Amino acid sequence: MLETTIGGARQARLGYELEDLALVPSRRTRDRQLVDLRWRFDAYEFDLPVLGAPLDAVTSPASAQLLGDLGGLGVLNLEGLWTRYEDPEEVLEEIATLTPGPAATQRLQELYAAPVREELIGRRVEELTATGFAAASLTPQKVERFHRAALEAGLELLVIQGVAVTAQHVGLSGSDPLDLRSFTGRYDIPVVVGGVWSAKAAIHLMRTGAVGLIVEGGTDPVSTTYAALGVEAPLATTIAEVAAARTRYLEESGRYVQVIAAGGLRTGGDLALAIACGADAVSLSTPLAAATEAPGRGAVWGLSSAHHELPRSRYQRIEVLGTTEQILTGPAHRDDGTVNLLGGLRRAMAVTGYESLHRLRLAELTLRRARGGPGAGVVAG
Amino acid sequence: MLETTIGGARQARLGYELEDLALVPSRRTRDRQLVDLRWRFDAYEFDLPVLGAPLDAVTSPASAQLLGDLGGLGVLNLEGLWTRYEDPEEVLEEIATLTPGPAATQRLQELYAAPVREELIGRRVEELTATGFAAASLTPQKVERFHRAALEAGLELLVIQGVAVTAQHVGLSGSDPLDLRSFTGRYDIPVVVGGVWSAKAAIHLMRTGAVGLIVEGGTDPVSTTYAALGVEAPLATTIAEVAAARTRYLEESGRYVQVIAAGGLRTGGDLALAIACGADAVSLSTPLAAATEAPGRGAVWGLSSAHHELPRSRYQRIEVLGTTEQILTGPAHRDDGTVNLLGGLRRAMAVTGYESLHRLRLAELTLRRARGGPGAGVVAG
Amino acid sequence: MLETTIGGARQARLGYELEDLALVPSRRTRDRQLVDLRWRFDAYEFDLPVLGAPLDAVTSPASAQLLGDLGGLGVLNLEGLWTRYEDPEEVLEEIATLTPGPAATQRLQELYAAPVREELIGRRVEELTATGFAAASLTPQKVERFHRAALEAGLELLVIQGVAVTAQHVGLSGSDPLDLRSFTGRYDIPVVVGGVWSAKAAIHLMRTGAVGLIVEGGTDPVSTTYAALGVEAPLATTIAEVAAARTRYLEESGRYVQVIAAGGLRTGGDLALAIACGADAVSLSTPLAAATEAPGRGAVWGLSSAHHELPRSRYQRIEVLGTTEQILTGPAHRDDGTVNLLGGLRRAMAVTGYESLHRLRLAELTLRRARGGPGAGVVAG
Amino acid sequence: MLETTIGGARQARLGYELEDLALVPSRRTRDRQLVDLRWRFDAYEFDLPVLGAPLDAVTSPASAQLLGDLGGLGVLNLEGLWTRYEDPEEVLEEIATLTPGPAATQRLQELYAAPVREELIGRRVEELTATGFAAASLTPQKVERFHRAALEAGLELLVIQGVAVTAQHVGLSGSDPLDLRSFTGRYDIPVVVGGVWSAKAAIHLMRTGAVGLIVEGGTDPVSTTYAALGVEAPLATTIAEVAAARTRYLEESGRYVQVIAAGGLRTGGDLALAIACGADAVSLSTPLAAATEAPGRGAVWGLSSAHHELPRSRYQRIEVLGTTEQILTGPAHRDDGTVNLLGGLRRAMAVTGYESLHRLRLAELTLRRARGGPGAGVVAG
Repeated sequence: MLETTIGGARQARLGYELEDLALVPSRRTRDRQLVDLRWRFDAYEFDLPVLGAPLDAVTSPASAQLLGDLGGLGVLNLEGLWTRYEDPEEVLEEIATLTPGPAATQRLQELYAAPVREELIGRRVEELTATGFAAASLTPQKVERFHRAALEAGLELLVIQGVAVTAQHVGLSGSDPLDLRSFTGRYDIPVVVGGVWSAKAAIHLMRTGAVGLIVEGGTDPVSTTYAALGVEAPLATTIAEVAAARTRYLEESGRYVQVIAAGGLRTGGDLALAIACGADAVSLSTPLAAATEAPGRGAVWGLSSAHHELPRSRYQRIEVLGTTEQILTGPAHRDDGTVNLLGGLRRAMAVTGYESLHRLRLAELTLRRARGGPGAGVVAG
Repeated sequence: MLETTIGGARQARLGYELEDLALVPSRRTRDRQLVDLRWRFDAYEFDLPVLGAPLDAVTSPASAQLLGDLGGLGVLNLEGLWTRYEDPEEVLEEIATLTPGPAATQRLQELYAAPVREELIGRRVEELTATGFAAASLTPQKVERFHRAALEAGLELLVIQGVAVTAQHVGLSGSDPLDLRSFTGRYDIPVVVGGVWSAKAAIHLMRTGAVGLIVEGGTDPVSTTYAALGVEAPLATTIAEVAAARTRYLEESGRYVQVIAAGGLRTGGDLALAIACGADAVSLSTPLAAATEAPGRGAVWGLSSAHHELPRSRYQRIEVLGTTEQILTGPAHRDDGTVNLLGGLRRAMAVTGYESLHRLRLAELTLRRARGGPGAGVVAG
Repeated sequence: MLETTIGGARQARLGYELEDLALVPSRRTRDRQLVDLRWRFDAYEFDLPVLGAPLDAVTSPASAQLLGDLGGLGVLNLEGLWTRYEDPEEVLEEIATLTPGPAATQRLQELYAAPVREELIGRRVEELTATGFAAASLTPQKVERFHRAALEAGLELLVIQGVAVTAQHVGLSGSDPLDLRSFTGRYDIPVVVGGVWSAKAAIHLMRTGAVGLIVEGGTDPVSTTYAALGVEAPLATTIAEVAAARTRYLEESGRYVQVIAAGGLRTGGDLALAIACGADAVSLSTPLAAATEAPGRGAVWGLSSAHHELPRSRYQRIEVLGTTEQILTGPAHRDDGTVNLLGGLRRAMAVTGYESLHRLRLAELTLRRARGGPGAGVVAG
Repeated sequence: MLETTIGGARQARLGYELEDLALVPSRRTRDRQLVDLRWRFDAYEFDLPVLGAPLDAVTSPASAQLLGDLGGLGVLNLEGLWTRYEDPEEVLEEIATLTPGPAATQRLQELYAAPVREELIGRRVEELTATGFAAASLTPQKVERFHRAALEAGLELLVIQGVAVTAQHVGLSGSDPLDLRSFTGRYDIPVVVGGVWSAKAAIHLMRTGAVGLIVEGGTDPVSTTYAALGVEAPLATTIAEVAAARTRYLEESGRYVQVIAAGGLRTGGDLALAIACGADAVSLSTPLAAATEAPGRGAVWGLSSAHHELPRSRYQRIEVLGTTEQILTGPAHRDDGTVNLLGGLRRAMAVTGYESLHRLRLAELTLRRARGGPGAGVVAG
């Protein structure tokens, strides 16, 4: 870890975003049909290393089925509209017509003020199991309360997702309301933890038995966490550090933990760079919200857009770019890298000569000066 | 202190702004109700670590009372409109209607050409004491002339604020018109010095007996001091360096001097970062000028906007964002971090796991590449 | 090669673009008539070190003749419109009227879906030989199939151009469909390889017998390869590294291989910097597409703009700046460096005091801070 | 000098612009009336360290008189409109009405195609001597031809100004058309050389007997030399390096050579930073062209805007900001630092505590991160 001195005794480590980096073709190339995009995860195998993010604008029971059919994996948010409303389609329709700004935020706050209904949790999971692989998310605060309904309905993968999730939460009673290690010990269901910002958080979470970690970070234009809290993680650096922690944990435990990159990935290039930095898969938000079949209907927002006291992501309208299939695997009629994301990843692997996602981690990287100056490694002449 | 060579024998030290940095959640999180925002300062304790800046657009006797009721501390400028005019409300009304540009600057120059009336100094301080804690500012040049009226009227905290204030001013007579050490020795009133740009200035000012220092800096869009004078201090670096000087002075004297960050703080994230760099509290300008109750009525300007010869800050119109209470402690219906600033600070402390303002200084920081490239620590391969 | 640590075990080397650099006049100047711009290349000598890029918007048989007459060298793309259509002028007319956006991309995809007709390959090469020096390009995948027709028609220089070309392509059969070393051994025709992104690729390609390499890179606004694939090479760094590889190869073989810079060169300053970094010549796209005689008629696009599945360059309309002659050698009535490119190169050599393209490599360079901060070489004070 | 590796064997030294730097107030301040702005230069003393640049938009015989009366020093270009036209006022009127763009450039090319008339050279110098100090410029190519007329008419200071001027020009005959050392030996008139880009050029020029050097550089938005030629010098670094060379030369010769900063200085802050980096005085273009009395009448252009073959500066219309006196010494009704430049310099010296231009070189500098990232001096943790 490289550090700089801010002043006095204060240090800061250097952080890089994916867009600071570029892949560099080297001495070998490969036919793109000789590239393997499959993601193996526990006993599962997915054709595409892609999760649909647990946002109401991205994942509904129907869009999860569609993404599953294409080879990915949708994660339904069990504290979003689908468990607050019997039939949320009407609410989604209304949200899609809002004009970005404080009034939209206020309306979201009202709509999300409806309580989560426990009986809908089981029902939504049943809808997921009926059509494919059932993956869904809960916040750490609500896991104890809602997990039974979800598990009984056949949930196959649980994502525990908060703003920041650690293995050591100091709760109101002075102790953590969720004992993750005990939870993963009690149940067979694989648990993925989201809201991981650093290698330190990651290694402790790995030791609780999580099978995967979702690394937060990046400069997602939807998120305003940095403005509101001053909190941000540089995505490329965080992926690489968590991946290194994963290797250390593998040595101490023999277990290989999945690293999933989230936070503002938009293009095929972003996918290739996230995987080259050490991710096993990516969690997509805006690209899937831009699909014709997206529940957001041309709008995108986070659960935190609706926070009653301190909203921390933007409600935005976005351009619809094509079907989910086109966005993931093409063909594209756009030339900006936002459609056919997996085609871009496949070609990135072809021109750098690597045949599997794991091996892409060997690719050479360049620090792009266009994003601000390296200049370093300088010697006095 | 890190330095670079500009060329020949000329050196420059590296400077960072708050927006160059980000807080990184680490291995522990904390319920946000377990976070303590109280600021203890001499015998005083404030619920919020917030000063209202001594600008006419921000602090009037009435807005000082309001801020005091919310747990903060307004500082009235005793050389602003409130001591130049019997009833400045009319002048404030007129200023609020100006169109930004040279004509507005010229009108400000005319309005501030009215002399400070000594009898109004005592009257304003009395208005402050009648409704709460009485804090007010004078420039170093006018302290000797005006302090008696203010002290007799019950002033509880004196801020001595200039463009740049040092313990060694070379005045026209060849000696400093204000002997700070003798002044703080003569009176019991706590003195805070504003206009501190560096650790060197800070340590000498601490030795004069000041109980607090206001660190200037940052890239406040209102200020044009850099354009006019070439003078600027990087806020994060200056806070950290002054905080380190405070520790050295604590060791030599046993006295802990408050460090207050000023200069362009706008969001909850800015507050969290300023405190993480070593500040005890912040002095707010634009955020408080954006309140419905602000004396500026939707405009913001500095005393130096009205300088007769070389205006050095911009008269600007700004969007009114909510009540003072909403801006400080929410709830927010905006998603950009500009409302519920203390809610943002509280959550920053919760997700990084720290329970007090002092302990937030232990939080890990990242240098954000988005603002220009680190790249350093590079080794030749 | 300078490297930085991204995080964990991941490294990235630092990359510079041409616009990060500036030439610095030093102790000597020279009359600009004493500057020699000639480019010697095998048995050939060209008055100007300029290739016309193998893009349909840039090089047609007619524009190749014009460029040849001016002292440069046009390269016709043998898999573009000229070998798909008997008379492509009508198609070029239509393309010139498209409105940039997805509809234009879709129309390009349709127009380029017409198959390459083998009989047109010979015919186009004959048109080139009839009017000047015949240089043309093929992709590595099609060299085996189409080269005979081209060679029999008198091709004098073959450019093998792909997205990324290496000496070790893993094809569908498991082996490389094109054995370059054997190809260059079989034929006398000089082969230039385009799509070279790194020194590693370069040294292996030199060993196959290529007489020149076209270095890809830069931040050409037309290309979207970075967005789509995450692949990008910093042009200045890549030129300098490939030039250093060329020196190593010269020592091992006695052969001097030409390095040609491509990718977003727009101004006389770009030419001067590319050559100062180690290039022997440049391949121009947009500047030549901006000529009154350009086949693109005010539009510019790449072959990859029309890719059926993942388009990777933008169709753009550009301002027509003057005749090809004016753009290359002036006189200019524009003051932005986009006209009279060779005049700019000539003056750059004059004010730095160098008389030949080779010697300009001795010129001193500055890293421009305007593009992001160096700041390095810093020592703790 | 700090260097970085571009790639392979290619190095570049790091360069800083003035706007990369900021002055930092330190432990002492000073009343601004105790600040001395006088510039002593050979036997001369000027109240203000300010030259009017030898541009037709800036300096005419009349504006030179005005600047002289205010304490500065105008330099008339003896190869501009005043020696090409008997009465250039009409031409200046026409130029002031042009619309920026290629047509304006072409018209400038026509107007400046009129030959320099030797008889007007003497006449203009006489006009200068009649009203004040006579300073004027010639290009190195024309010094031998025109200097006699100028000297006989009483020229008091000769500026030899070219794009890049060195002591070793290789001319068409193989030798330098101007032998500077012999020229300065032959005549008593002090010679200032403009077009100095580096310390190497500077030290050789000092040895020819020049009394002052004008350092070129910066990112003047008027100049397009970088776009056209790839040539640029970072102004802060170049001033500091030339100032260091000046010290070396002082040690070897006992002569102190004046360093004058040119190139895009716009604000009081720019002046303060140029002098803090080591300049003795500044040469102003755009600020003086923005005066109500400027010959440019609201337009600004360089001689190179009119170059017949490769124009290298922009014809621009600018806002008129006030009288020459206001722009230099105030009072200002603008708050952006562009008016009362010397007032800004004076205050910069007051808040940093220095009493003379020479001592301002002792002021501490900060590298502003806002302009791109330092980040360096980093250590692996």
